[in-house]
Amino acid sequence: MVSRNVKLAKIGIGSNYPVRVESMLKVPLDDTISCLEQLENLEKAGCELARVAFPRMELERNLATVASFSRLPLMADIHFDPRLAIAAIDSGCPAIRINPGNMGSKKGIESIVDAARQNKTVIRIGANGGSINSRQLEEAEGDMAKALFLAVEEQLFILTRYDFHDIILSAKSTSINDTIRSNAMLSKKYSDYPFHIGITEAGPGLLGIVKSSCGLSILLKEGIGDTLRVSLSGDPCKEIETGYEILRAAGLRDRGPEIISCPTCGRKRADVVSILGKVEHLFRYMPDGFKFAVMGCEVNGPREASSADLGIAGTPKGIAVFRNGKILGEYPAEEIPTILEELLKQIDSDQSH
Amino acid sequence: MVSRNVKLAKIGIGSNYPVRVESMLKVPLDDTISCLEQLENLEKAGCELARVAFPRMELERNLATVASFSRLPLMADIHFDPRLAIAAIDSGCPAIRINPGNMGSKKGIESIVDAARQNKTVIRIGANGGSINSRQLEEAEGDMAKALFLAVEEQLFILTRYDFHDIILSAKSTSINDTIRSNAMLSKKYSDYPFHIGITEAGPGLLGIVKSSCGLSILLKEGIGDTLRVSLSGDPCKEIETGYEILRAAGLRDRGPEIISCPTCGRKRADVVSILGKVEHLFRYMPDGFKFAVMGCEVNGPREASSADLGIAGTPKGIAVFRNGKILGEYPAEEIPTILEELLKQIDSDQSH
Repeated sequence: MVSRNVKLAKIGIGSNYPVRVESMLKVPLDDTISCLEQLENLEKAGCELARVAFPRMELERNLATVASFSRLPLMADIHFDPRLAIAAIDSGCPAIRINPGNMGSKKGIESIVDAARQNKTVIRIGANGGSINSRQLEEAEGDMAKALFLAVEEQLFILTRYDFHDIILSAKSTSINDTIRSNAMLSKKYSDYPFHIGITEAGPGLLGIVKSSCGLSILLKEGIGDTLRVSLSGDPCKEIETGYEILRAAGLRDRGPEIISCPTCGRKRADVVSILGKVEHLFRYMPDGFKFAVMGCEVNGPREASSADLGIAGTPKGIAVFRNGKILGEYPAEEIPTILEELLKQIDSDQSH
Repeated sequence: MVSRNVKLAKIGIGSNYPVRVESMLKVPLDDTISCLEQLENLEKAGCELARVAFPRMELERNLATVASFSRLPLMADIHFDPRLAIAAIDSGCPAIRINPGNMGSKKGIESIVDAARQNKTVIRIGANGGSINSRQLEEAEGDMAKALFLAVEEQLFILTRYDFHDIILSAKSTSINDTIRSNAMLSKKYSDYPFHIGITEAGPGLLGIVKSSCGLSILLKEGIGDTLRVSLSGDPCKEIETGYEILRAAGLRDRGPEIISCPTCGRKRADVVSILGKVEHLFRYMPDGFKFAVMGCEVNGPREASSADLGIAGTPKGIAVFRNGKILGEYPAEEIPTILEELLKQIDSDQSH
């Protein structure tokens, strides 16, 4: 799939770039300090683009403040009022997310497109299962996936009529199936635009993580998705962490080290969970894609441990330590954290030379 | 895909049955009390089949004790020694997991097949990335997915030579891609056997949950998988919970109520996370597939909330409560937990009449 690329300040989105991981501020613009704090945490977590709800004109100054201090590009999320869109563009947001269909008059749309063109602002348009109205659903003969497709197409026509193309498309639903089908229809016809993907209102905790992982991994396998958001109720940094793990699982991005650890069973000779608890923090600064394996016994252990960059496996004689496929020795469990710490220091120093 | 069905005590596995969710005991057979406790917890969590490592003949009595008191069917996991396989069958395990290729002599295999046939024991065979040897990898010209396929085929030939077919197949790797490719090759050729699916050594916490969700959802979408295990380092009940959420996401099983909740943003009028914390436990006993939506604002909120069996959405006037698509009223946030509790009591009592 060849997709057009768009630029939001320093980051590019599209087929020339890695799939981006984004989130959205969960604190209101009324509180600029909290916004900037959350943006800083998001950036540390690896977030590349942050959406921010901009619901009222009196928050314009706050948006400008946050946009100017933020090190992440912002996408202002706007509904119903074209003045908000213009104000967001004027405030320095490199992107806005609107639904051109609910922006009122033709004149409103024209003013948004003019401002966006002048400021090289990217416009994300899209439909969400929760915003489809009964007319749209009827036109799609009750098929939500088709209704989402038609709604996005309708929005796209409004913008392309003005020969505006710096657009990101999205179609999202709480139903994985509807999300996949609507995106498949869209990407078949409009693959020249970058796609934002996500499963909306995926829910709290485990449920949301599993649902997002399942839905997004299938989309990514179909080659759909240039930027993604994992919607979770809770800390937005967890959305970022989950997003990167989904991309790692899809073989698309390898952020941070990877830990391969066995679930353990009655055969275990090494207490995998306790060892992991003691050493996991040591790996935090290892390079992207660095593989560490922790295996409980000699059945699959030695092979997995020797396939990793660094690995340990329980054996009848103790815990075997492997580095780059070579066994370094077998040691008592209590010595393992110190041995790993020493090895990681050495690996780290070898890499900086 | 039509697959042969097998029976393990009271549960069937194959195309006539729902995809099963299984786990493995993480405590050794040496401690029968802990084994039975973990089995009870697993059963409560919804586990339908539990594997148990049976590494030494002196644990035979313990295995028999656990098998006779367990309410879950057990699959004894055995390596290298045919006597262990026979002992497991004699101990009343309805299934064993072996690698016929490492069971020694032809006579050993014959005795296992005889005992299995006599006792209607199901045999799971399979290959794991960690157990592939260099000869197998060489034969597959270095392609791990093909090596897994060939290894499973090799094991299958050993059993089918004796016209034994109560077999479950599995091919697992820490690589999602190798797991998917090897399963695709196997299911193309051997779709008449049920498949056990999983991503091995998926790792700790979030990483393991995401990796398993991504890999298994793609396999399930391809129609592959009759029983699954999510391998996580940690509490095996978490494996079961994750397994059911993966099946829910795949549209295959709906276990327990489903919560749809928005990630919240700066627009939120309802504090979704805090409300969820207060009411989530009330939903525990709602029927399978019962949908509860918690939405922060009026943008997508009312539609999502009214599409659910029960839903709430923040609005400028308070929190709107919806039941079966009808709005019941708008209330202050602090009244919501009590209102929901009353509604759930009523729903529960309506259902029992």
